[in-house]
Amino acid sequence: MAEGRKLRMGMVGGGRGAFIGPVHRIAAEMDGKIELVAGAFSQSAERSREAGVKFHIDPARAYANYRQMIEAERKRADGIDFVAIVTPNYLHLPIALAAIEAGIPVMSDKPTTATYEEALELQAAVAKARLPYGLTHTYAGYQMVREARAMCAAGKVGKIRKVAVEYFQGWLSRPIEASGQKQAEWRTDPARNGPGGAIGDIGTHAFHLLEYVSGLEVTAINATLRSVVPGRKLDDDCNAFVRMNNGAAGTLACSQVAAGEMNELTLRIYGEEGSVEWRQQDPNRLFVKWLDRPEEIHHAATSYLGSDAKAAARTPAGHPEGYLEAFAVLYREFADALIGWKEGKDRRGSLPATLPGIRAGVRGMRFMERVIESNRREGWVEF
Amino acid sequence: MAEGRKLRMGMVGGGRGAFIGPVHRIAAEMDGKIELVAGAFSQSAERSREAGVKFHIDPARAYANYRQMIEAERKRADGIDFVAIVTPNYLHLPIALAAIEAGIPVMSDKPTTATYEEALELQAAVAKARLPYGLTHTYAGYQMVREARAMCAAGKVGKIRKVAVEYFQGWLSRPIEASGQKQAEWRTDPARNGPGGAIGDIGTHAFHLLEYVSGLEVTAINATLRSVVPGRKLDDDCNAFVRMNNGAAGTLACSQVAAGEMNELTLRIYGEEGSVEWRQQDPNRLFVKWLDRPEEIHHAATSYLGSDAKAAARTPAGHPEGYLEAFAVLYREFADALIGWKEGKDRRGSLPATLPGIRAGVRGMRFMERVIESNRREGWVEF
Amino acid sequence: MAEGRKLRMGMVGGGRGAFIGPVHRIAAEMDGKIELVAGAFSQSAERSREAGVKFHIDPARAYANYRQMIEAERKRADGIDFVAIVTPNYLHLPIALAAIEAGIPVMSDKPTTATYEEALELQAAVAKARLPYGLTHTYAGYQMVREARAMCAAGKVGKIRKVAVEYFQGWLSRPIEASGQKQAEWRTDPARNGPGGAIGDIGTHAFHLLEYVSGLEVTAINATLRSVVPGRKLDDDCNAFVRMNNGAAGTLACSQVAAGEMNELTLRIYGEEGSVEWRQQDPNRLFVKWLDRPEEIHHAATSYLGSDAKAAARTPAGHPEGYLEAFAVLYREFADALIGWKEGKDRRGSLPATLPGIRAGVRGMRFMERVIESNRREGWVEF
Amino acid sequence: MAEGRKLRMGMVGGGRGAFIGPVHRIAAEMDGKIELVAGAFSQSAERSREAGVKFHIDPARAYANYRQMIEAERKRADGIDFVAIVTPNYLHLPIALAAIEAGIPVMSDKPTTATYEEALELQAAVAKARLPYGLTHTYAGYQMVREARAMCAAGKVGKIRKVAVEYFQGWLSRPIEASGQKQAEWRTDPARNGPGGAIGDIGTHAFHLLEYVSGLEVTAINATLRSVVPGRKLDDDCNAFVRMNNGAAGTLACSQVAAGEMNELTLRIYGEEGSVEWRQQDPNRLFVKWLDRPEEIHHAATSYLGSDAKAAARTPAGHPEGYLEAFAVLYREFADALIGWKEGKDRRGSLPATLPGIRAGVRGMRFMERVIESNRREGWVEF
Repeated sequence: MAEGRKLRMGMVGGGRGAFIGPVHRIAAEMDGKIELVAGAFSQSAERSREAGVKFHIDPARAYANYRQMIEAERKRADGIDFVAIVTPNYLHLPIALAAIEAGIPVMSDKPTTATYEEALELQAAVAKARLPYGLTHTYAGYQMVREARAMCAAGKVGKIRKVAVEYFQGWLSRPIEASGQKQAEWRTDPARNGPGGAIGDIGTHAFHLLEYVSGLEVTAINATLRSVVPGRKLDDDCNAFVRMNNGAAGTLACSQVAAGEMNELTLRIYGEEGSVEWRQQDPNRLFVKWLDRPEEIHHAATSYLGSDAKAAARTPAGHPEGYLEAFAVLYREFADALIGWKEGKDRRGSLPATLPGIRAGVRGMRFMERVIESNRREGWVEF
Repeated sequence: MAEGRKLRMGMVGGGRGAFIGPVHRIAAEMDGKIELVAGAFSQSAERSREAGVKFHIDPARAYANYRQMIEAERKRADGIDFVAIVTPNYLHLPIALAAIEAGIPVMSDKPTTATYEEALELQAAVAKARLPYGLTHTYAGYQMVREARAMCAAGKVGKIRKVAVEYFQGWLSRPIEASGQKQAEWRTDPARNGPGGAIGDIGTHAFHLLEYVSGLEVTAINATLRSVVPGRKLDDDCNAFVRMNNGAAGTLACSQVAAGEMNELTLRIYGEEGSVEWRQQDPNRLFVKWLDRPEEIHHAATSYLGSDAKAAARTPAGHPEGYLEAFAVLYREFADALIGWKEGKDRRGSLPATLPGIRAGVRGMRFMERVIESNRREGWVEF
Repeated sequence: MAEGRKLRMGMVGGGRGAFIGPVHRIAAEMDGKIELVAGAFSQSAERSREAGVKFHIDPARAYANYRQMIEAERKRADGIDFVAIVTPNYLHLPIALAAIEAGIPVMSDKPTTATYEEALELQAAVAKARLPYGLTHTYAGYQMVREARAMCAAGKVGKIRKVAVEYFQGWLSRPIEASGQKQAEWRTDPARNGPGGAIGDIGTHAFHLLEYVSGLEVTAINATLRSVVPGRKLDDDCNAFVRMNNGAAGTLACSQVAAGEMNELTLRIYGEEGSVEWRQQDPNRLFVKWLDRPEEIHHAATSYLGSDAKAAARTPAGHPEGYLEAFAVLYREFADALIGWKEGKDRRGSLPATLPGIRAGVRGMRFMERVIESNRREGWVEF
Repeated sequence: MAEGRKLRMGMVGGGRGAFIGPVHRIAAEMDGKIELVAGAFSQSAERSREAGVKFHIDPARAYANYRQMIEAERKRADGIDFVAIVTPNYLHLPIALAAIEAGIPVMSDKPTTATYEEALELQAAVAKARLPYGLTHTYAGYQMVREARAMCAAGKVGKIRKVAVEYFQGWLSRPIEASGQKQAEWRTDPARNGPGGAIGDIGTHAFHLLEYVSGLEVTAINATLRSVVPGRKLDDDCNAFVRMNNGAAGTLACSQVAAGEMNELTLRIYGEEGSVEWRQQDPNRLFVKWLDRPEEIHHAATSYLGSDAKAAARTPAGHPEGYLEAFAVLYREFADALIGWKEGKDRRGSLPATLPGIRAGVRGMRFMERVIESNRREGWVEF
């Protein structure tokens, strides 16, 4: 690959009213390794063009749909190096498959697909195509999440006994999907969002964070779902017990009707000797508590962090990094993996262990499917 | 009752090595309405005498056991006005019954008894005797708990939809009961503690706080218990789903193996319009979060609090009150109820709504019993 | 002294409308070593009697004024063991002198007197009488203040370079002294309060805390005073630079017109290797920050604290202690010193190093005098 | 200007070892309005080329020095639209003047120049050239700083009486300039940094934040400087009293030897009715405290914020934005101003009131000069 060239990204989705489109654009471009050059930003050709202008891309590369984009871009000498998928969930699979069939790597917003069956289908396609497929479980990009993960892996808190993860939001406390709020509309519509409501939208994040940091796997779950807002078709609140593959146990909770909460994602992991606690709304601090020693606050961008955390820092200690920077860490790792693949250094398109990919995607969809099944049975189900 | 006279307290338990005895003494005497004058501080006469000296009471009133104390004190003109019970759980019932049969009111440490059946027996005795019986669910004495309770009652956060209470400690992370730590020893011994471990010791506090503040009742529970530390006979970790009598639902968790936690009791209640959050380790602040308005911090001892909170304040805003002050609020309310009863103003010995009594005690034991049953059945049980 | 007997306290001041009277009563009695038995609670005999009833003391021992109290009590076999002074500042000296002349030890609210000259006079009297004189600089009683003090003394943070102490309140933001608020009235009246306003009321606390924790002495000060509220006769806001006797320097600020603040007393001490930070409104935590290591939170009542902090704890870690408990630590130490003196073990009436006495009182008045002089000169003054 | 075209940035400085170069690049490009296309990244041609490769720019546009860059770029049809200056301070003036003389707008890192005299010279040049000159006082880009500013302007906290701003770091606690740390080296060298050490590097930020948020001007200052680390030529610690043009007063402090602090920039402004408090290390919250109402926490990206804050948000509430996002807000506003100027809508090159420019730069240098003079005189100096 030409030294100094940026990787070229083509985006599907992310047009008017979308929150996540600009987030992906900023995150992808932050470290100067990627540039957005093409897109099928909307299912309306007109709106896609409008978004293209806003994104400052060549009008000829603002396509009416993803099929057009993939077809046109693969013929260009300067065609896109990968596709970023930022649409509602039900479109994740067909777009990813189309890209993969065209030999184009994919960076997808989560959840990987709308259902577990789709996820398995996609996993097979990725495995066959041997190309990089990344999944933006954003919170995996935070420095202090990586530090917590490294501490668990190194056994710093001792054998893990107890876990607690929760993700509480309040923005769906009222039936705003009924009054045309676009974000709420598709997220509460089974046809576009899939069978999971809050559990798909944010529960999968909580589940991923739990397995990612602890290094453990959930082996059984006992979940109870509710649709608290009258008339809502999908779950907006979930509480679950979980059992882990090392014998630990704990809870996973998510809600979008926790009135007054903004984006309260919190993870606590208790070992035999101490515990770690991370809160997404205060992301540059990791609280480490010990049985017989003073509590510690580990700060981002400090000299005493491990290599995974350090690699994710851009500004000095005390200069807060946030959500976009975490997101950009994932894109940076994806870019590096993509370059290695293009240059033939890694022919399987594998990702670094710190970057979520199709396996995490399948786990997330399995989680969603198991939660729904557990709720139906009103009891424990195996994973 | 003679104006200006302090109420006379006789304590059972609280001798050497006990943490809770001095706490009751300080709390009872804090507001100048009560004085400790007698006690059966230990099951050893010698140790009871030693404790009497430390507590500066008349040596003649340091008794060898509670039966002696009750018998001797009821004959004195200046005999005790009430008995404070601060023994291990299995003794709560016999002591309380003995006092009640002697016509002496009781202020008991929680849990009210060791089992649900005992609690029902005690409830019947209290009802028959028509005298004040108070239960020191300490956290009910905090100003901001009372403010949260008043806000829920007034519908400030809207109809309650979701609740989450947790009580995490880490001090039983190691098998310290095996090395002679007295507090740990009886608390992990079914014979002295009753059938509930962490659920009895701290779960009952969490349960009480939940019902006390929300004004709701738990109608069903699905609980899972663990004895995490090898060899431990009682539970040391519990996670539970709860359903409330207004249709709300949520979680209750308690643990004594959450390594690194000290006394992390946290309650969150989510209504349709907002939520309240209180943390015992930061007790003078109540966080109130709204759907569309700035988050608020309500501080203890401020002008804008409701009457229940205000009545519980002793020092100006910004001068922290703590655990002992909360405890003392309960004793103050008990003293006032006791005076009213002695003066014949209230012949039933009833307590103010803010002070936990036998009903709360029965609820707590029912909670413990239901948790154990739910864990046995691995599923939901009705209350 | 008879084993098991409590020390008998006679209080001057603390009647109707006083906040600090009940605080002293609670604090003195908390640890079961002292009981309030007499008082001259008000300058009105009638109000003194009323207060006596509220405090449950023998009506015969509620005196019309402190002279009567001292005279009557010294004749009683069960007379008071010490006098607690809780009046407005201008009365501190005459009351203390009267007690000392009668051979009765004194526990005084701060400031020790109304002026520096008075403080010197009192110091001479105490030295001559060789009896215990304690001063309730409350914040010296907090566990974590003592831990910070011990850490500085042990050189944990390295040589101290920089200090910053501030004490901000907002309750005098409006001219409430003009509308009859009793606390505000005397505190803003030079005749009753002395020449210092905020600097006397809270600046002396900040100054004491600084010297107490750092183990250093202020050698020079450059202060600027303001009376922010129109018509106010005394200062209500002060900013000062300070120089310490080891070459360190820093700031001291106090204000009672910091609208919105309650009782924000904060101390930070920076050494060559790290720093300590303590906030009175969050008193059970001490923040310790290092150059190259994780920040630490040292919690009250934990196993890793030093002996001075441990000696000041009453409840287990995570059970918050507050303002009253800190206050009571001072009374407990005073009681122990008093017993030693009465029993002849210490004939000089000296206090432990952790308990503020007349020397701290003189330092505080010197501080106030130097601040006023510095403000007058608009520049530095030596101490 | 061609619709959809990005503005072209040429950077001076920011090569190897520089922290601030990549920050400017990320911030400038974040909102998709600007792209880095050219640079004179180092005073070594070789290193400039290396940096160009890292930044993915055309090798022909990585120049050996800023004169070459300006000369070459002005001849290109696709030449740079503005120059970003990110060098050590002593180069700010000559580079800015060279750009301005070539008619090229400037976005400069702070401080605007190395001395006050230079700042006046630059101000004259900017005024004459009538083109946009922006100054990256980063903290002005935070949402909650803008909300605080809007609240002060609207009189929400009442007339301002008292201010307190401080900026504490600890990274220069040891003489790291002696061991080759590049950032420390030039910042402690008067020849490259100018006559102010900490006061120039971070004091100017604190000063700007104070005037920016309060809407007031400092009219007098009394400052005391220290060089705490032995052998250091410039100040590393400063405490100052300030007087404001509405009669308010307060303090400004900065230090780079506050061991254990990372980047603790805190501003508090007290009015007659309440106060606002903002902490850079917790930037998405603004604490608002009132005399008689609950304290409030205003969160970034919420519905209740004013228009200035809202315009600065990119992600939903609870998704933290940080230092880079604040920086990027300034670049976005600069880009918009630049477009307006290029399109002839504003021929004077003026900036929006929320974006710091040459006037803020002159104020900052005046601050530095006055601080040094006050320290020399050991007393107050007028502004």
